[in-house]
Parts: sequence; structure tokens; C-alpha cells
Amino acid sequence: MSRFDIALPHTFKHGESIKLKDFSSGPPEDIGFGKKAAHKRIGLNAVEMAEMAKRLYAENRRSILLVLQGMDTAGKDGTIRWVMRGMNPTSCQVTSFKRPSEIELDHDFLWRCHKAVPRKGNIGIFNRSHYEDVLVVRVHSLVPESVWSERYEQINDFEKLLSSTGTTIVKCFLHISKETQRERLQERIDVTEKHWKFNPGDLKERKLWSEYQQAYEAALSKCNSEHSPWYIIPSDKKWYRNLVISQLLKRVLEDLDPQFPEAEEDFRGLVVE
Amino acid sequence: MSRFDIALPHTFKHGESIKLKDFSSGPPEDIGFGKKAAHKRIGLNAVEMAEMAKRLYAENRRSILLVLQGMDTAGKDGTIRWVMRGMNPTSCQVTSFKRPSEIELDHDFLWRCHKAVPRKGNIGIFNRSHYEDVLVVRVHSLVPESVWSERYEQINDFEKLLSSTGTTIVKCFLHISKETQRERLQERIDVTEKHWKFNPGDLKERKLWSEYQQAYEAALSKCNSEHSPWYIIPSDKKWYRNLVISQLLKRVLEDLDPQFPEAEEDFRGLVVE
Repeated sequence: MSRFDIALPHTFKHGESIKLKDFSSGPPEDIGFGKKAAHKRIGLNAVEMAEMAKRLYAENRRSILLVLQGMDTAGKDGTIRWVMRGMNPTSCQVTSFKRPSEIELDHDFLWRCHKAVPRKGNIGIFNRSHYEDVLVVRVHSLVPESVWSERYEQINDFEKLLSSTGTTIVKCFLHISKETQRERLQERIDVTEKHWKFNPGDLKERKLWSEYQQAYEAALSKCNSEHSPWYIIPSDKKWYRNLVISQLLKRVLEDLDPQFPEAEEDFRGLVVE
Repeated sequence: MSRFDIALPHTFKHGESIKLKDFSSGPPEDIGFGKKAAHKRIGLNAVEMAEMAKRLYAENRRSILLVLQGMDTAGKDGTIRWVMRGMNPTSCQVTSFKRPSEIELDHDFLWRCHKAVPRKGNIGIFNRSHYEDVLVVRVHSLVPESVWSERYEQINDFEKLLSSTGTTIVKCFLHISKETQRERLQERIDVTEKHWKFNPGDLKERKLWSEYQQAYEAALSKCNSEHSPWYIIPSDKKWYRNLVISQLLKRVLEDLDPQFPEAEEDFRGLVVE
């Protein structure tokens, strides 16, 4: 038992309908350590994770899919930058799902995501994902309810396929308060070096905060299964968010316990000339 | 002028026909520092490179393509693991080119490579590349000479397109001696944890050492241009190889000098509610 074992994501029961207001978006009050200790731990985790990821790659049998979702400014990009730094880019790929292209819209909504799932031995990260099709699409009624309401089951079937064919799915909802989003958007306006991250359209989306929270509650509640669980990550403090996700991913790798594979043929004693 | 400025790749003139035996595969004799200092410098470079790569990504205008080629065991994978560690995987992608699939063979040889070039703001790494089509393909006569002999010009045209549309191309030939390859192959046979890297077919390829060296000499000589230069990296010592490539990439990023972009519209004074 280490003192960092307090850094845990919120989980909830399969089948349970959740309300996000019941989950804290900040660190526990009794946490007992701060930013500095967290950063140190994240660094140590990164070294251990890189070693385990190397074995996962050598083993070439299973994969990990990390799905990151959250409101604007929740920290999807920052999580990748801080938690995954240290990973070998050969076996770690990020796919950022943006507004679908015309060709993507000419296919079912899972088509572009299926193309991007990690290959054996690799860790894939979805920065936004197929869940956008029951989030932004639902909030803005981009398709009729009869269409989006069927997607939860389609998503569950898709994720079941992935998990039963060797992919461990880890879905993180980066949970922030409305006040945290306000501060972070304001920072993007006020700090020149952050201007490139600011999109005036984000302010319009912010007005739909409660509609988005409801859409998230539905997605989390309907698509939380043993083989593809959601974790609610308290994300008001970046250092705590990063620590929780780092601890979580390290545990996932430890549970997989990948091993260097045995040689397919016996070449002991062979001498290279 | 730092003492690490001695860690330079070999270069040669555009149009010059080179012989690999004229280039050392080890560090300079008067180097004056060793593994420990090199590792420290690579770590410091990684921090600076991550910061510049972030600006390149924010700028979203230009890209870098790093091509890694070399004989088996020359250290293409190791280079990526050690030099690129610290990069944000969001903007750094590795493509490992293996034996082409049937669908790839049904297209021209540049098709699969073109699909994999880095998008704006990103750093793409080719672990092996379109050069295999004038290396293994030439050595094993997988296509007639009339076909592969035209490919040098086709490659030059392809790289000219990339460089004139915003991609800085950096091509590294990881130069090792035949003795170094022997030691490293033997290690893969003798060390259990390295078995997964060993392919008995590598021994057959090793018998074709001089044919491969000749094919490399042709590729390097015919496809070395100002906009798409080859660098010959002394790679017998891993720490020196990594240092030279790290220094090279850092310089490429410094020369590009990417900047956070200006905001497209003026939103100064905007207050988020």
C-alpha cells in the first residue's frame, strides 16, 4: 500500500445510472500530498510503463485502447503529453477525432474508429472517440434521436468485439467543474502563447454545459461494462488528473503482465559468422 | 561551440558517388567524452526538442520526416526509443515498413509511403522506407533492373514534392561495420530477452553484406540533394549514434524555429461567463 493508492478514479456499477454531480471533480480532501510528489510519481511510473510496454510490443499478442473524453479544456491533450511522455512512439499511437470528413460521414459512425484501433502489441489512444456520436451529435441533434439512441448498443457491441479479440479498453471521462472550464477558457484568451488553442466556438458550446453533462451521463451509464469500463477522473487539478490516469494505466499494464515471447524455433548454440 | 559539436554525421556533396568504406562507423578518436555525457546531453536535447515540437504542432504549417535506414541490427528501433522518448505521441508518428501486403504490391512502390507522410505540425518517422525498393528489392532482384533503376529518379521527384510543400526531410543511414552486426546478431541468439528480435532469415541476408553495401552506396549517391540530404551516422556505438541523431534533429528544429501562431481574430478583452 503506497500513499499514491489514494489517487483512484471513480468507478460505478455496470447498469447503474449515474449523475455527474455525485462525483467530485477535485482531489480527495485528505490526500496528504501535492503537485511535486505527484509529478515525481508520474515520472517513475513512466519508466515502469515504458518497460512493460516494450514487453507488450515484443509479445505481439494483445493491445490497449485508452479512450479520453471530456468537456473542452478538460485536459485530453495535456494528459497525453504528461502521462505518455516516455513511451516509445513506435508502439504508441494517438488518434484525434475531429469533425468527420465527407468520406467518413458516408460510412457508419464506427468506421473511422475501427480503422484506428491499436494493432497487436500497441497502445492506442483516442483523443475524443466514437462517443462524440452520442455527445455533440446528440446535443446538436445532428441526427434524429431514433438514430443516436441506437448507438449505445452499437458501441457496446463494437467494444465487446475489441475486448474479446485481445484489446483491453480503458475509458476515461475527464471530469471538471463549470468554474474550472471558465478559468481555463479565460486563460486561453488572456495568454498569448495559448491563443492557438482558443476557438470562439467553444463559448457557444459552453452555453450548452448542462445538455452535455446529461449526454455524458447517458453515455457513461449505458456503456459501462466489465470488459469496457468507464473511469471518472477528477480533473480540476491537472497534477491529480495525470497521476490518477498514470496509476490506472500502470495497473492495467501490470495486470496484463506481458512477457518476452519464447523463440519459435530453437537456435541455441548458433554461431554467427 | 559546445564539446558536443564534435558529434556530427558524415555528409557528402550532391552528385558525389560515395564508397561506404571511406566513412568511419565509429566515434571520432579524439572525441573526449563518453557514454555518460552523451546520455545526459540526449536527455537535455529531448526536453528542448519537445518544446520546439510543441510549437511546430501549434504552428500547424510545416512538418519533419525522419527516414531511418540501415543494415539489420544497425539500431533503427533503438534510435527511435532513445532519441524520440519525450516526444508527445500526439504529434509524432512512426511507420515501420515491412514486407509489402498484396494490396500494397498492387500499387506503385511510393503509394504506401505517401499515405504515411506526416501531417502539418507533425514529426513522422519512417523505420525503413521507400528506399527498401532500391535495396532489398535490388539485391534479391524482386523486380527487373529496368524497373528498380528508374526508382532513384522517382524517389527524387517524390521527395522534391514533399520538401516543396512544407516537409523537411532528414535521411539517416545508420552505418555499422560487419563485425558489429556479427556481435549484435550473436547477442540476439544468446540473450533470452532478445530472442524475439532474432529472425534466422537475418543470417541469410548477412551473407549478402557486400551486395547490400553496394545498393546503399547507389541509393545514397543518387538520392542526396540539398532539399533531401542523406546523413551517414557512425552507429557502431549506440550512445554515439543516438547523440549524433539527437543533435541533428535538434538543429533541424532550431533552423525551422517554429512559433506559436497569432490568433486569427482579435479576441482580446473577451470575458468568459
